[in-house]
Amino acid sequence: MTDVLDSAVDDGLRAVFADARLRAGEYGAHYAALWESLEEQSAGGKRIRPQLVNAAYFGLGGTDRSLATRVAVSFELLHTAFLIHDDLIDRDTTRRGAPNIAARFAGRALAHGADDRASATWGETAAVLAGDLALSRAHREIASLPIDGPRRAALLDILDRAVFVSAAGELADVVHAGATQPPHVDRVLATLEQKTAVYSFECPLTAGAVLAGADDRAVGALARFGRLVGVAFQIADDILGVFGDPAVTGKSTTSDLRDGKQTALTAHAATTDAWSAISARLGDPQLDDGTAALLRAALLDCGALDAARRLADEHLTLARLELDTADLPSALKAELGELAQRAAERAR
Amino acid sequence: MTDVLDSAVDDGLRAVFADARLRAGEYGAHYAALWESLEEQSAGGKRIRPQLVNAAYFGLGGTDRSLATRVAVSFELLHTAFLIHDDLIDRDTTRRGAPNIAARFAGRALAHGADDRASATWGETAAVLAGDLALSRAHREIASLPIDGPRRAALLDILDRAVFVSAAGELADVVHAGATQPPHVDRVLATLEQKTAVYSFECPLTAGAVLAGADDRAVGALARFGRLVGVAFQIADDILGVFGDPAVTGKSTTSDLRDGKQTALTAHAATTDAWSAISARLGDPQLDDGTAALLRAALLDCGALDAARRLADEHLTLARLELDTADLPSALKAELGELAQRAAERAR
Repeated sequence: MTDVLDSAVDDGLRAVFADARLRAGEYGAHYAALWESLEEQSAGGKRIRPQLVNAAYFGLGGTDRSLATRVAVSFELLHTAFLIHDDLIDRDTTRRGAPNIAARFAGRALAHGADDRASATWGETAAVLAGDLALSRAHREIASLPIDGPRRAALLDILDRAVFVSAAGELADVVHAGATQPPHVDRVLATLEQKTAVYSFECPLTAGAVLAGADDRAVGALARFGRLVGVAFQIADDILGVFGDPAVTGKSTTSDLRDGKQTALTAHAATTDAWSAISARLGDPQLDDGTAALLRAALLDCGALDAARRLADEHLTLARLELDTADLPSALKAELGELAQRAAERAR
Repeated sequence: MTDVLDSAVDDGLRAVFADARLRAGEYGAHYAALWESLEEQSAGGKRIRPQLVNAAYFGLGGTDRSLATRVAVSFELLHTAFLIHDDLIDRDTTRRGAPNIAARFAGRALAHGADDRASATWGETAAVLAGDLALSRAHREIASLPIDGPRRAALLDILDRAVFVSAAGELADVVHAGATQPPHVDRVLATLEQKTAVYSFECPLTAGAVLAGADDRAVGALARFGRLVGVAFQIADDILGVFGDPAVTGKSTTSDLRDGKQTALTAHAATTDAWSAISARLGDPQLDDGTAALLRAALLDCGALDAARRLADEHLTLARLELDTADLPSALKAELGELAQRAAERAR
């Protein structure tokens, strides 16, 4: 069943991009290439948001595969838009180990004879526009659903919350990165929740539930469960970003340290005697792999890894408790329990 | 009547921002400040898009002021989003003579002790997010209208076209700016149409008409009229950007020349013997007011100003012809005729 639903989402995304590429061709090769890059950027994700939409929708008695697919496609496009604009803000040039849309368009400019300055502008322009286009298309998928007014209004509220809260989290993230004092762990967790857990876990679950016609109590339980699991996943991601195996995660274990990313690890370290030595090196743009190894050892020694794992576990315990006490169908509980288990294994 | 409608749009925008600011406060002072900056950025515009929505809607028999206001608010928010992301792409720091949202947030960062690099990131982050938020809210205004399915679908198509075509035009603009050969005048006009005329003139008119339940022929006539008038307005703007009176327009007459902006003026100049002297100075980041005066004289001498005025006139003649032959109520024709007249006076 999950495979069938996954491929329905892939088909839905393919249809969106095929239509757009065709229309874009009327405006020249560069614009068609922008849509091709957008499609490439949206490929290769784990499709976790569509899976959550489908889990909630079918788990709560929904039967219309086409409606669920469109909501799932909307959340995947929203995710693509956020990744593109997040890379733009962070001035990143790679995503999932490959050149991102800005890097690809900067390369395209060079191939067309542009100088370095112009090629940087092409790259930024492509990133701004591709994010806007994906975001607009995410809205359109939900706005054009053939459903009754109250359900449409509830889904639009969920989408609005996804965008509104993520923007708050993204801003908080940038503000914290520049702070002279490291933020308290509660603030780090609040930012994780806002920047990622709400749009990636809470909202896909509540959207699927609302689409299925679930009552407010079920929707509320899924919202709380989603936020808790989402925060646990993000803590696990931050652990993997420093202590993971790049061969498995496809992610450097130096770049978060070089960027001085504020995580549960650094928030704990800031409360220990090891902090002055760690903070002297953290966020150094020149930070090399050797220094990263030293920082990793220092974070381990001061108990930051254990503390972060504990935090992830606490969130998962609360998430499972939410699930146990919720009035939800047992098959849905089992599926969401597996999700929590995956987060737990990731954090280890 | 127009005053009453204008103030309904202002009230509608105020309500959107008041609600958002209140919610944003829960996520901290910076996020509330972001929404305040977004509101400031949306203030002070000429509200031409709302006026076009209202002209078409009430001119074609619409009677529900609240529906018209929400569509008008949507187009004004779309405009705000595009201006913010356009400034981001162009690395501009002022808008309507005041610091724009990026500049305000960079200043806010400095006031909070951030260094130059961090403050630039705050500014860019604010611009990316504010544009995304305004764009999302523009979609929401139309998606949540209490109207029947076919009208909603038609309005969503118009909004989709506004975003899709503007992005094509914005990309084309950036691509042309880096080109070694100046684009042909037809290409300059196509870019003006895509980047501005479609979302600023065509779509507000067709959205108002569709909302009023107008038939396809009336909608088609308004679309063609809107594109023609929109291109004429933009040619006039480009003329004012070089030959205007900064005291009246509030706009420097040096910056377009310094940026090497591709306009009907430069496209004509490129076909004359004066081009080698003009192109040697155009787009020089160091270009001062003295050199700008020399360029202005050269553009005048080679006939670029006359050629651009002629182009604007040709578009207005075609726009008036469209209006004369269209089956539209005479009061609406008169109102749109005045709009064309304003464009003609601007180009002089």
